Amino acid sequence: MSQQQDLLRDAMRRLNLTRDAFAERLGVRRRTLDTWLLPEDSNESRAMPEMVARFVAEILLHEASTAAAAGTAVDERPLARRIAADGRPQLLSVSQFERSSLEDLFHVADVMQPIARRQKVTRILEGAVLGSLFFEASTRTRVSFGAAFCRLGGSVCDTTGFTFSSMAKGESIYDTSRVMSGYVDALVVRHPEQGSVAEFARATNLPVINAGDGPGEHPSQAILDLYTIQREFSRMGKLIDGMHVAMVGDLKYGRTVHSLIRLLALYRGLKFTLIAPPSLEMPAYLLDLVSRNGHVIEQTHSLEQGLRGADVVYATRIQKERFEGEAIEGYTPEFQVCKALVDAVCKPDTILMHPLPRDGRPGANDLSVDLNHDPRLAIFRQTDNGIPVRMALFAVLMGVDQQVARSMRDVGWRSPAHIGPDDADFDGLD
Amino acid sequence: MSQQQDLLRDAMRRLNLTRDAFAERLGVRRRTLDTWLLPEDSNESRAMPEMVARFVAEILLHEASTAAAAGTAVDERPLARRIAADGRPQLLSVSQFERSSLEDLFHVADVMQPIARRQKVTRILEGAVLGSLFFEASTRTRVSFGAAFCRLGGSVCDTTGFTFSSMAKGESIYDTSRVMSGYVDALVVRHPEQGSVAEFARATNLPVINAGDGPGEHPSQAILDLYTIQREFSRMGKLIDGMHVAMVGDLKYGRTVHSLIRLLALYRGLKFTLIAPPSLEMPAYLLDLVSRNGHVIEQTHSLEQGLRGADVVYATRIQKERFEGEAIEGYTPEFQVCKALVDAVCKPDTILMHPLPRDGRPGANDLSVDLNHDPRLAIFRQTDNGIPVRMALFAVLMGVDQQVARSMRDVGWRSPAHIGPDDADFDGLD
Amino acid sequence: MSQQQDLLRDAMRRLNLTRDAFAERLGVRRRTLDTWLLPEDSNESRAMPEMVARFVAEILLHEASTAAAAGTAVDERPLARRIAADGRPQLLSVSQFERSSLEDLFHVADVMQPIARRQKVTRILEGAVLGSLFFEASTRTRVSFGAAFCRLGGSVCDTTGFTFSSMAKGESIYDTSRVMSGYVDALVVRHPEQGSVAEFARATNLPVINAGDGPGEHPSQAILDLYTIQREFSRMGKLIDGMHVAMVGDLKYGRTVHSLIRLLALYRGLKFTLIAPPSLEMPAYLLDLVSRNGHVIEQTHSLEQGLRGADVVYATRIQKERFEGEAIEGYTPEFQVCKALVDAVCKPDTILMHPLPRDGRPGANDLSVDLNHDPRLAIFRQTDNGIPVRMALFAVLMGVDQQVARSMRDVGWRSPAHIGPDDADFDGLD
Repeated sequence: MSQQQDLLRDAMRRLNLTRDAFAERLGVRRRTLDTWLLPEDSNESRAMPEMVARFVAEILLHEASTAAAAGTAVDERPLARRIAADGRPQLLSVSQFERSSLEDLFHVADVMQPIARRQKVTRILEGAVLGSLFFEASTRTRVSFGAAFCRLGGSVCDTTGFTFSSMAKGESIYDTSRVMSGYVDALVVRHPEQGSVAEFARATNLPVINAGDGPGEHPSQAILDLYTIQREFSRMGKLIDGMHVAMVGDLKYGRTVHSLIRLLALYRGLKFTLIAPPSLEMPAYLLDLVSRNGHVIEQTHSLEQGLRGADVVYATRIQKERFEGEAIEGYTPEFQVCKALVDAVCKPDTILMHPLPRDGRPGANDLSVDLNHDPRLAIFRQTDNGIPVRMALFAVLMGVDQQVARSMRDVGWRSPAHIGPDDADFDGLD
Repeated sequence: MSQQQDLLRDAMRRLNLTRDAFAERLGVRRRTLDTWLLPEDSNESRAMPEMVARFVAEILLHEASTAAAAGTAVDERPLARRIAADGRPQLLSVSQFERSSLEDLFHVADVMQPIARRQKVTRILEGAVLGSLFFEASTRTRVSFGAAFCRLGGSVCDTTGFTFSSMAKGESIYDTSRVMSGYVDALVVRHPEQGSVAEFARATNLPVINAGDGPGEHPSQAILDLYTIQREFSRMGKLIDGMHVAMVGDLKYGRTVHSLIRLLALYRGLKFTLIAPPSLEMPAYLLDLVSRNGHVIEQTHSLEQGLRGADVVYATRIQKERFEGEAIEGYTPEFQVCKALVDAVCKPDTILMHPLPRDGRPGANDLSVDLNHDPRLAIFRQTDNGIPVRMALFAVLMGVDQQVARSMRDVGWRSPAHIGPDDADFDGLD
Repeated sequence: MSQQQDLLRDAMRRLNLTRDAFAERLGVRRRTLDTWLLPEDSNESRAMPEMVARFVAEILLHEASTAAAAGTAVDERPLARRIAADGRPQLLSVSQFERSSLEDLFHVADVMQPIARRQKVTRILEGAVLGSLFFEASTRTRVSFGAAFCRLGGSVCDTTGFTFSSMAKGESIYDTSRVMSGYVDALVVRHPEQGSVAEFARATNLPVINAGDGPGEHPSQAILDLYTIQREFSRMGKLIDGMHVAMVGDLKYGRTVHSLIRLLALYRGLKFTLIAPPSLEMPAYLLDLVSRNGHVIEQTHSLEQGLRGADVVYATRIQKERFEGEAIEGYTPEFQVCKALVDAVCKPDTILMHPLPRDGRPGANDLSVDLNHDPRLAIFRQTDNGIPVRMALFAVLMGVDQQVARSMRDVGWRSPAHIGPDDADFDGLD
């Protein structure tokens, strides 16, 4: 993403304006704004006049002083300080975020896009070592964090699964944490027991990211989910405020939907449609939280009814291993989000999301593979976004978020224009 | 290897001339040519006159224009394009190679030698991340690929064995491949099922190398085997065309011999002696392929008879786990390639190869450890060659093969003159 | 650590003088020397006059010429040569060290401190690859070695546990070692069988470090233990010569105490109190070795009696898995080093050490977690020291120990002032 795109997107996000509203504010046609927002290598891309940049800066300054006068001034502390957990640069829960800090993090993630897209490299964390401690195996999450740290220039020391021998010998989490902290510069921890990662984090002053603590949280997943919605909407000129999101599947045990709904609740005027089988509904405390923030909630057992009109469909797999032996009343094979259903009830600009992995076997009650060529399927754009979001988290927690843009240089090897053969379906989207 | 050696070796390979024939063509004595081909730090090494370099360039130019006139012009496309799999920079099968592309790859591997020998370092792939996905454990192959990528300046994210949790939850190979591709810049994949790596590769535009798909292929092994033969022969002034190779052991299930024989079939006038127990013979379709290309094939159950006169003995282990329960008729303990046998029937310049691991236990029907001090044992020169060959593959697939030579700088630490204590037996060989 | 501190500490170590004695030799007050030894960023820190540096250099020169005249001249060979194993740059046993080579290694570890403390980075080993082969899982040790190598600028290829498939197929240690040596530049090996690592090391000329061979040795642990004692004593102005160390726990099977006692025996006039349950006493051959070197040994089954007056308490866990089924006569729950006991019988400057992991469960017969806020608990300063010590070992074995100081540059990210929240208890200690 060019500096120009970066500047315009950031302004729209800060001002919370759609493309239409922003174009109006600038006094240009929507089509003109669109050409400024296209990637530099697109034929349609246009450079905006220098004056526009100054105008945008002026508007932002004006906005800030208005906010200051109204007593809603921007928090000027570094982002790491604002999201700190108990004073430490650690990410344990989505509750550490408010809307403004989320949006600032998204700005850092945008800065990382040229690296994530293999156009630039940085070595800003050269010499730093990440300890990646997965007391429970998770290839996807582990590699995503590891690759993000490597792309910042650091090195990774991995530990996976039950080979973590010390804890089997009665070592406390306190000892494990403090010992590992003496070896590395930042820690990513996954643990099967809720609260374990927080206990781990209390024993160290190093940056720690919770990569999932059993039924607890997995905050970076919710953040990348929201970042994906924000980027997709930005491309389509839509705002998160006022949107309609349908959440599908196991809403009782799925920690990703729990964390995501808490982040979405920071926005304004959303409509949530929660579609779950009878025994797998969203817990009451989350319904309360969302209602208190003034959002509308609908609950239904019917996929067809629930998906209708949604801007975002967030599907999840029924994690059978979470409640073996329990009967799942009303849970029948028609609980599948497939191409026919999406074509029938969703809009052309609906986006389909999923925390993955999805069960791709025939008849699975999950997001169907027959949607693989539908541009609305955003699941790989979503996982791709894991890299810039996790790079942004590391950069913020390690205090290099302001230096990283200056540290970039061009990539030296050849990368494909599109990562996946089916990505071309989305060509020019961004 | 110096520029001088590099230039001369490459010329001999392109012209397909032995040292004797090349010396004659240049009008110098064989001994003179030998001194030009010695490593620079050898006492006997001599710099060749500048005029020789010009002469050699002239000969190559003449050769090229003759080939062009004869309609057999060299394919000028980049090597990655010439060996592409379905248009992508991926290595799935040895069938992607023809003789000229193999030889060009060997030239890139030669360029990597100073790095592989710890005389030079490069950071050409700094910032790149390799995803090393081993759905089936293989330390040797995994470390060889990983070390090769690191020596090019990149970082590696590893996944080994059955901890690959997503696929157990019903995730398709398509999803796994596309998700991982969003995290990394190249992929090395091993999978127990034939065809799985190709399926994985079809779901991504990134470089993918098949590191073994069960009974299918393991192309980088066959390429490093052939590269080894080529280097050993170059040292001895022999040509692959017309050579006699004996293949020993399990020729039915051993994928390494299957891939190697397909590569060797690209050369001219070879004699193959295939020595296997009755139920473990080379499949008929491979015999047909080799015969069609005009090579001579002999089959025998007798080691002593089969090894006689061979230039290369390629021994393999009987992989008992591949056919448990099946009776191995005629397979008796005298099926061992040992020092006494080699001394009795092989030549002083025969080379002994093996894909490793070899079973070193007493009485094993494998290449015997009593050959460890015999200079004809090329098995460690062979595994050492895995590094430059895999570096070359990465460099070609990622489009940096033309830049890597310029990017090298001197190594900063101390390396032993010989890697193994027994390597001195081969001192000055290269 | 500043150059000034470095110089003074090294001088005290070479001259074997306490702070008091060194201050007297220099003709300054002890308090003045203390201010020169404080970290630069301390308010109390003072720069010493240039003349002092010259005076110290003069004293060291005089000392060296006196030693030369007395026939006890310093061995001028590079450290790697002096500690070589069978002529190779390998660390297999603590027996490769004598006192002077240990102290020289400690000096290299001191040079690494700014990197270990995240104030500096170096890339001196950029391009080098470490093969980390753990045939027996050990997260702590593996990550410590891996992070140390990464902090020198190198890359790490890991192999853990029983996934090491080749050896299961009958491959000899000789083959495994020689093959891996062709891929990497240095090797760290842990193996469950005593002597296996030495066998592995004999098959390669590369640097190899024994990271534990079952009941055999784990030399880097003993070295970092001694380095910790030396640093703690240096801070307190005490000398190792003449100190009183109490060793507690399983002294029969614990390889760490075996290796440590052999290193301590290189010093002069120590008193050892060995406190073990009846069936777990220190082997006789080690008692003999220590006695022969003129040290005093006391043995007791009583914790309370044994700890009294000790300068160092080295506690170990009873590794139940080492002797399952065997009865442990006299081993009762009061065999625990806890806060009450330490307060009752230890001195204010006693230091408490442990090789970790310690069993932190209630009632465990180990070093109690109720000491976590006691500044005498040195266990995390001890594990922290694993990084500079292992960096020093790699630097020495790879021949870059003299270049590393010049290669350092400032770290680019933000690190916490203290790694652990409880570390502030020791603030200003160093």
